[in-house]
Amino acid sequence: MISEEGFIAGLELNSLNQIRRGIDTYRFEGIGDDCAIIPVENGYVLALTTDLVVEGVHFLFETTTPETVAQKALHVNLSDVAAMGVRPIATLLSIALPKKASKSDWADRFSKAWAQASERANVTLIGGDTTASTDKVVINVTAIGRGHKSHIKRRNAAQVGDIVCVARPLGRSKAGLRDILNGNYDSEAAHYHNAPEAQVLQGIWLGGREEVHAMMDISDGLATDLGRLVRASSLKQDTELSADVNLEMIPVARDATLEDAITGGEEYTLLFTVREEAVASLCEEYQRLFGSPLYPIGQITESLCEEVRWFDNGDQIEPDWECFTHF
Amino acid sequence: MISEEGFIAGLELNSLNQIRRGIDTYRFEGIGDDCAIIPVENGYVLALTTDLVVEGVHFLFETTTPETVAQKALHVNLSDVAAMGVRPIATLLSIALPKKASKSDWADRFSKAWAQASERANVTLIGGDTTASTDKVVINVTAIGRGHKSHIKRRNAAQVGDIVCVARPLGRSKAGLRDILNGNYDSEAAHYHNAPEAQVLQGIWLGGREEVHAMMDISDGLATDLGRLVRASSLKQDTELSADVNLEMIPVARDATLEDAITGGEEYTLLFTVREEAVASLCEEYQRLFGSPLYPIGQITESLCEEVRWFDNGDQIEPDWECFTHF
Repeated sequence: MISEEGFIAGLELNSLNQIRRGIDTYRFEGIGDDCAIIPVENGYVLALTTDLVVEGVHFLFETTTPETVAQKALHVNLSDVAAMGVRPIATLLSIALPKKASKSDWADRFSKAWAQASERANVTLIGGDTTASTDKVVINVTAIGRGHKSHIKRRNAAQVGDIVCVARPLGRSKAGLRDILNGNYDSEAAHYHNAPEAQVLQGIWLGGREEVHAMMDISDGLATDLGRLVRASSLKQDTELSADVNLEMIPVARDATLEDAITGGEEYTLLFTVREEAVASLCEEYQRLFGSPLYPIGQITESLCEEVRWFDNGDQIEPDWECFTHF
Repeated sequence: MISEEGFIAGLELNSLNQIRRGIDTYRFEGIGDDCAIIPVENGYVLALTTDLVVEGVHFLFETTTPETVAQKALHVNLSDVAAMGVRPIATLLSIALPKKASKSDWADRFSKAWAQASERANVTLIGGDTTASTDKVVINVTAIGRGHKSHIKRRNAAQVGDIVCVARPLGRSKAGLRDILNGNYDSEAAHYHNAPEAQVLQGIWLGGREEVHAMMDISDGLATDLGRLVRASSLKQDTELSADVNLEMIPVARDATLEDAITGGEEYTLLFTVREEAVASLCEEYQRLFGSPLYPIGQITESLCEEVRWFDNGDQIEPDWECFTHF
C-alpha cells in the first residue's frame, strides 16, 4: 500500500489518508432546529429534514385514504422546511408496502396523490426507495429546502421584548382526531388532522423579514413547542427567558377548545417571535398578502422561573393540561 | 391581497407569485442512478440517497443484533454514495421503534453502534426523526455525499470496448443468508450478510479516475445490476450495448457458489467499466493503494440481442439462474 506521503495533484487522491479525510473538511451547523443546514454556494444553504409516517401510529389503514396519507407525509416535511424560512425544492420518498397495499390500488393512488401534491407545492421528487413490509405501511420523506442564509430562522433567536405570534388558529388537528376517534371521519377538522397543510409560502415570506427572530412549526403542541423555543433561546443567549402568553389572545380553531389549541400536536402552524415595534406593520402586510391574519399571543420576557407563563386576562394561572406526545 | 405587480427589492418577496415560484428556478438531474444529484457550488454537487431497512424484510429482530442493523442501515446508504464516486459526508436517521425495542436496551445499543460506525466512516449525523411503531423496527437513512461534478460516475456511461470490473469477490451475502436460514448465525458470510461493508474509499478513489466510465453498486445481484448498467448506457448513447461476461473470471467469495456470485443481492460491491487501455495500470494502482485486487470480468460490446451475455471459457451459455428480488 502507498504511504501517506502521496501528493495531491489537482483533485487526485493518492493515499488512503487523503481519500479518508478529503482535501477539505466540511462543517455542519448544530442539530435542534426543524432542519439541518448545509452551507452550499456563497451565502446559500440547503435545509434538510426527515420524517416517518407509520401506519398504526400516524394513520389507520382502514380509515385513511392513500391521498390523505400522501398529503400528510409531504406536508409534515414541507412544514419543517418552511419553518426555517426557506423554500422546499425537492423530496426523497421511501415507502415500505405490505401485501394489502401492493395488491390493491393503494400504491397507485398514493403515487398519483404524491405527484399532485408535489406539483402544487412546487417540489420535485428526486429519489427514493420502495421495499416490502410485513404488515404495515411505512413512509419516510426527506425534504430539501434552499435559501439565502440571511433568511434562515432558528428556534433559538427569540429576544427579550419580542412578540410571540402564530400564523393560524390552533387546535384543529386535535379536534379532528377526537372526531375520528368518535367515528366522524368527514368533519372539516378530521380532514385537517388526516391531511394537514403546511404554511409553505408564509414560511418563505417570513424568512425574508429581518424583524422575525425565532421561528419553528407547531408539531407537538403550542405549550410544548413554545417551551422548546424559549429554552433554545435562553441557552443560546445565556439569559433566562420566558414567554408570557395571554390565553384570551390564542386563536382557537372552529370546533376546537382552548385546551386543544394549547396542547394539540400535528398542527404544522408557524410559531415565531417578532421585534415589538415591527409587529403591527408585519401583521398588516401579511394580511394584505395572504388574506388571513397573524395572531400575536404573548411576549418574550426575562424570567428566572418558567419557560412559558400563562395569563388569563392579566392573572397568571397554573395550567394542568396534558401535553401532546407521539408515543 | 397584493397583485402580481409586486416588485423584487433585493431578496424581498412581495407577491404570492414570487413567493411561490422563487426568484430563480432550480433544476435537478435525472433519477435512475444510485443517488440524486444537486448542483451546489461552482463545480460541486451533493449526492443524496435514501434507503429503508425493515424488520421482517431486511433483518429478523430475534437473530440480529442492533449493532449489525446499525452497520447495515448505514453502509447500504454509504454504498450508494460511494458508487457515484463521491464522499459521504452526512446522514439523516429516522427510526420507528415498537415497545419491544424501546423497553429494552435495543435503542441504546443501536445508537451507540450508529455513532461508532459513523465515526469510522467519517460521516456526521445531522438530523432525524424518532417515532413509535406498532410492532416492527423500521429505519430509514438518507445519506448525503459531496464531490466535484467531474468525479460523478453514472451507470449510463459505459462505452463499447470498456472492461467490466468488480471490486471484491461476490456471493458472500447470499451464502450468508443461506447460513442464517440454516441456523448458522456465526459464519463469516452470515456476519457479512447482516452487516455489509460499503466500499467507500474505493468509490471515492475510482470517482477521481477519468478512465472509469460507468459505476454503480451491486445491490440486486451482478446479473440484474449489470443488466441495468448496460440498459442505461444503451439508452443514453442510443446504441445497443451488451456486456460479455466470462464466468471463469468472476471472483467467487469463500463459501459461495458461482451462482451466488452472479445472482446474490445485497453485496454492496462496486461494479464499473474502465477504458480498455487503462485497466492494467488502474488495477495495479488499486492493488498498491488498497492491498486487494480489482477483478475484470468481461467487456462492453455492441450487440443487438442481449444486455448481458455469459461465456464459459469462450462458449456462450444460456443461464437459468433465478435472480435476486427484495420482494
